[in-house]
Amino acid sequence: MKIPVVQRILSANDQIAAENRARFDAAGVFVLNVMASPGAGKTSLILATVPRLLPEVQVGVIEGDVASTIDADRIAAAGIPVVQINTGGSCHLDAPMVRSALEQLPLAGLNLLFVENVGNLICPAEFRLGAHLAVVLSSVPEGHDKPYKYPGIFTGADVVLLNKVDLLPHFDFDVEYFRRGLEALHSDIPFFLISCRTGEGMQKWVQWLLQRRGKNSEPQRKTQNA
Amino acid sequence: MKIPVVQRILSANDQIAAENRARFDAAGVFVLNVMASPGAGKTSLILATVPRLLPEVQVGVIEGDVASTIDADRIAAAGIPVVQINTGGSCHLDAPMVRSALEQLPLAGLNLLFVENVGNLICPAEFRLGAHLAVVLSSVPEGHDKPYKYPGIFTGADVVLLNKVDLLPHFDFDVEYFRRGLEALHSDIPFFLISCRTGEGMQKWVQWLLQRRGKNSEPQRKTQNA
Repeated sequence: MKIPVVQRILSANDQIAAENRARFDAAGVFVLNVMASPGAGKTSLILATVPRLLPEVQVGVIEGDVASTIDADRIAAAGIPVVQINTGGSCHLDAPMVRSALEQLPLAGLNLLFVENVGNLICPAEFRLGAHLAVVLSSVPEGHDKPYKYPGIFTGADVVLLNKVDLLPHFDFDVEYFRRGLEALHSDIPFFLISCRTGEGMQKWVQWLLQRRGKNSEPQRKTQNA
Repeated sequence: MKIPVVQRILSANDQIAAENRARFDAAGVFVLNVMASPGAGKTSLILATVPRLLPEVQVGVIEGDVASTIDADRIAAAGIPVVQINTGGSCHLDAPMVRSALEQLPLAGLNLLFVENVGNLICPAEFRLGAHLAVVLSSVPEGHDKPYKYPGIFTGADVVLLNKVDLLPHFDFDVEYFRRGLEALHSDIPFFLISCRTGEGMQKWVQWLLQRRGKNSEPQRKTQNA
């Protein structure tokens, strides 16, 4: 007797994430899900990346926060189209929240969309949004042990950025220890050292991002982590 | 007709938190639930506080992490009794986890217990452990907007510490803006500026902690947030 095997059924969130992805692809918009601890520099990453993409790449932003419009105000002040999601206490963005935000952020005219997740190094990893790229941002003041202590979010990352490297002289931070922790989770993870404040390393990151965006138009390279 | 009103029924977690609290009180152990973002310096706070309490106050530690024993190893290396809880992915400690840890950390002989929660500025606020004091630790590199963006955890705090103040010259951090955000949530919150690295501010914090511990033996001052 053959036992019937039911294929993995998409959760409600994953179902809506797939619908989001289809909308992004139809509109030709490449989408990044940016995840990090509170204060790692997610908004600063967006503000430092966008001017290096303009004018060829038109960028929009969805800001996720438990409360306040502080981050969205910073993005708007830079003249970038932005929608703020307040989760009202929830510790992560989910696919329905992103779908709602899209009602107020027309994809037409955009080529790239940053979704800044809630500051949290654990929960956001478990909720796909429909993005093409899972970006995990760590920062020097947080310490070099983060990949060892929070393996889930680093395992799901498509790229890892280490921010605030201009502060390395002021911290006992061993970059190789951090890198080894990362590579123990997956050996070929793209990893960039950056400083959003000084601009160090930004050119390499932006160059990689543009290449990765180009490759995404080849269907077989699409990722499913974000 | 009088409508019957059912008193708030304790959740399973709150029920076990109350049992934990009863055990702590019976043993005469004052318990701190230390909550913060990843890398804010929770372990460093414990390591900087304990030597200032010894030998009058005997201290134990429960370390909560998603994975690894990195923090517990640091505590053990300092000769402090410690138990590591690995949550296996969960984003916060809960009361049953603390109860389990107590099986391996005899309360007899201890006067004070630090419970270091998982690095997360959102979820731990929602799970009482049975502690007497909810300690929220923020740090200068995270930025001065944290009370505005993560109001839940700051609202539930009994005391807030701002760590890494030795780095203030390297950051655009407005202490008064941070303080105003905090006081908007509750006006009389005890607030200390500290540096676990240089020792700045530690004496005031420890003095306050010892006073607060003394007051807790007066039953009417017991708090319920932690």
